[in-house]
Amino acid sequence: MSDQREKALAYAHENGERFLEELKALVAIPSVSTDSKYQKDMEKAANWVAQALRDLGAKNVAVMPTAKHPMVVGELFQAGASAATFLVYGHYDVQPPEPLELWKTPPFEPTVVGENLYGRGTSDMKGQMMAGLKAIESIIKTDHLPVNLRFIFEGEEEIGSPSMGEFIRNHKDILKADLALNLDGGIVAVDLPTISISVRGLAYFELRVYGAAGDLHSGMFGGAVHNPAQVLCELIAGMHDRQGRVTLPGFYDRVRPLSAEDRENFARLPTNDDYFLKTTGAPALFGEEGYSAAERIGGRPTLEVNGLYSGYIGEGSKTVLPAYAMAKISCRLVPDQDPEEVHQQLRQYLEEHAPKSVRWELVQFAGSPASSIDPHQPQVQALAQAMEQIWKVKPIFKREGGSIPIIGELQQLLGMPTILVGFGLPDDNLHAPNEKLHLPTWQRGIDTLIHFFYNVKETQKG
Amino acid sequence: MSDQREKALAYAHENGERFLEELKALVAIPSVSTDSKYQKDMEKAANWVAQALRDLGAKNVAVMPTAKHPMVVGELFQAGASAATFLVYGHYDVQPPEPLELWKTPPFEPTVVGENLYGRGTSDMKGQMMAGLKAIESIIKTDHLPVNLRFIFEGEEEIGSPSMGEFIRNHKDILKADLALNLDGGIVAVDLPTISISVRGLAYFELRVYGAAGDLHSGMFGGAVHNPAQVLCELIAGMHDRQGRVTLPGFYDRVRPLSAEDRENFARLPTNDDYFLKTTGAPALFGEEGYSAAERIGGRPTLEVNGLYSGYIGEGSKTVLPAYAMAKISCRLVPDQDPEEVHQQLRQYLEEHAPKSVRWELVQFAGSPASSIDPHQPQVQALAQAMEQIWKVKPIFKREGGSIPIIGELQQLLGMPTILVGFGLPDDNLHAPNEKLHLPTWQRGIDTLIHFFYNVKETQKG
Repeated sequence: MSDQREKALAYAHENGERFLEELKALVAIPSVSTDSKYQKDMEKAANWVAQALRDLGAKNVAVMPTAKHPMVVGELFQAGASAATFLVYGHYDVQPPEPLELWKTPPFEPTVVGENLYGRGTSDMKGQMMAGLKAIESIIKTDHLPVNLRFIFEGEEEIGSPSMGEFIRNHKDILKADLALNLDGGIVAVDLPTISISVRGLAYFELRVYGAAGDLHSGMFGGAVHNPAQVLCELIAGMHDRQGRVTLPGFYDRVRPLSAEDRENFARLPTNDDYFLKTTGAPALFGEEGYSAAERIGGRPTLEVNGLYSGYIGEGSKTVLPAYAMAKISCRLVPDQDPEEVHQQLRQYLEEHAPKSVRWELVQFAGSPASSIDPHQPQVQALAQAMEQIWKVKPIFKREGGSIPIIGELQQLLGMPTILVGFGLPDDNLHAPNEKLHLPTWQRGIDTLIHFFYNVKETQKG
Repeated sequence: MSDQREKALAYAHENGERFLEELKALVAIPSVSTDSKYQKDMEKAANWVAQALRDLGAKNVAVMPTAKHPMVVGELFQAGASAATFLVYGHYDVQPPEPLELWKTPPFEPTVVGENLYGRGTSDMKGQMMAGLKAIESIIKTDHLPVNLRFIFEGEEEIGSPSMGEFIRNHKDILKADLALNLDGGIVAVDLPTISISVRGLAYFELRVYGAAGDLHSGMFGGAVHNPAQVLCELIAGMHDRQGRVTLPGFYDRVRPLSAEDRENFARLPTNDDYFLKTTGAPALFGEEGYSAAERIGGRPTLEVNGLYSGYIGEGSKTVLPAYAMAKISCRLVPDQDPEEVHQQLRQYLEEHAPKSVRWELVQFAGSPASSIDPHQPQVQALAQAMEQIWKVKPIFKREGGSIPIIGELQQLLGMPTILVGFGLPDDNLHAPNEKLHLPTWQRGIDTLIHFFYNVKETQKG
């Protein structure tokens, strides 16, 4: 281990108590983005984060307004033009604390109990953001940063990042980097470090089927015209085959098959089929044949019905033959599917299968491709190595089932891949009462990030 | 033609002007059953009808209260114990007149324009009820009634006859008859007299499908559990085969096949496939292979989706993997299907086809069998003969697609078949502005009923 690296790690440990106090100060600001009564606290938190960047010596630190809550940006360019540049992402807003009566300690009075720090935002994600800033501080105070950094900390993640797309489009210059380091991830178990290497994309549709010109009496007309609700059901039923595969023409053509390495990673996840059975409460699991639940969620595309409507849905009975039926249908996409291609595949399926006895229309609401990063990429390997240095175990490269707007937008708008990492635990009670941060894991996180920056530097040399 | 019959017909013609004035007096009472502001008019109409019965010499005339609007009953027993007894059914309530601005003459100021009497209730069904009463008067004033009659005139038909079932159960003694003569029918064209010989039954269900314990995030879990909306669609899709036939096990086992005579009657209807295409505005007709639209509606059973619900159905998108999906499903039944058997067939289908990855439940809301009368039955033939005597054309025996509560209830509770007849026309604007009664057809109706009662008498002799 290099002398400099040792010094930075030692600094982190010597200053651990102070780091915790600073984290507590940030958690004490109730920066709830969804509730306008916390408006002043949102500003306070943004300024607090901006000051933390200035304290690190960051330049061009700014609290930039958006339609709702400001973005905090800044940059630390100390490693020279040949070094890698990371865009460090975090968010300073938190979920609302309600229901308050279920908290054992007040949500905005951060309290250490045993090995955990309790309080809203401790894990999601003020702790994760501070792990990044404190790793950087530990290096800066003992050495020079081996990489260049830009920062973007938003205040709207918990309300769906509504301003992010426009902000990225308007501020490409100040966000430019080789790679995004999104600290909003987590690890799958306390002894199993995790790097999230992909998120799924999304293509969301509304399918509308029209039959007769208006609702009809099911006695006077039932049997003579096609019921659009029945047609809709038949169309939806035909979108999967008996193996649970999606039947849209060409749907799997671009789907990147899971490699043996991918499948090993999935098999290492503690979230096995039993876990999903218990967590969902479903009578049985179900999905594409030949894949585990984790693989189906993280590694395979889906087509889901998100909503269904037709006719009379109130209490009791009404003998209506509906004129209209509607389904919300969305596909989760994996690399290298294209949302517009999937849109066309759905359209082709409908053209081929919808009977002439109805009319239909298809509206697309959203389309974003999957985003992924190659786990063999040197910077990802640098992070994996850092985790192994601390945890003494190889991390899992995890494929996430969800779609994270900022990751998709950086990929789409700036062509920038993201490493999603963080040190929260599955039992941290995110979005729930008694949110907590496991402090030994948090400290490992700071150490991991210190190693990471040095590992990246060595990669660059090599 | 018998002398007595001639005298009765002559009386009807001589008194035609007065009959019309009496009908106008009844139409002028705004007996709108659905709107409580007409409560006094409902009572006035009930009493008017009771008085009309008394004027005929009817005995035991009564205005009997129900939870809402009263029933008017009475009896005319002049033909002796060996003669047939008919239960004459009518309703004295009418649809609301709104939208008023579309009426060319005031709805409750009955007005003759050309050959038509305009006003709410002229055709549905004060005119039909008066045709019956005036035919009876014409015989009584010139002869003795050749049949025995009981009467039941309700005030709730336009709101779904909510009190009828209970009333029948509680008053079986005063309703006892060989056959019901329901005057609430119509003819399919001005030159085509019609006897309705069957109405379809109804079995109405709600099917509920449950997946995970609660709604899930379609990203975090999509692909790993069975989506109940998809399962519901698959179940519904499987309820019909490619020939448009219902696949419930045994569904057609008891269905009475259409006879050659039935099919001839359907073929004579002016409501051909073109008519249904225009009337419904559907892009194309669709139904069970091998049958015309009229046959599908009147002579074949159906299974229809009346409502569909699952997940998110508001504007835009929500990436929810629903925990629940629901369909309202109803079957229109023909003779001799049994609603409870159909219930069990649906249950068996679900047991055989629903996957173990969901739970489901089936609730039955309504079940009534089809009701029909044999067109070769002597009294039906007596009516057919009467129509031919007046129209000089054989009437159509029509099978109705809808389910008329009173007809089903008389069949179910009293085992009493119904002849459904009336002299309204398809263009009478029932339930719409400018409702009218075609007076020449109305007068033919009175004459037809006079012939009918005499024909029944001759049948009894023979």
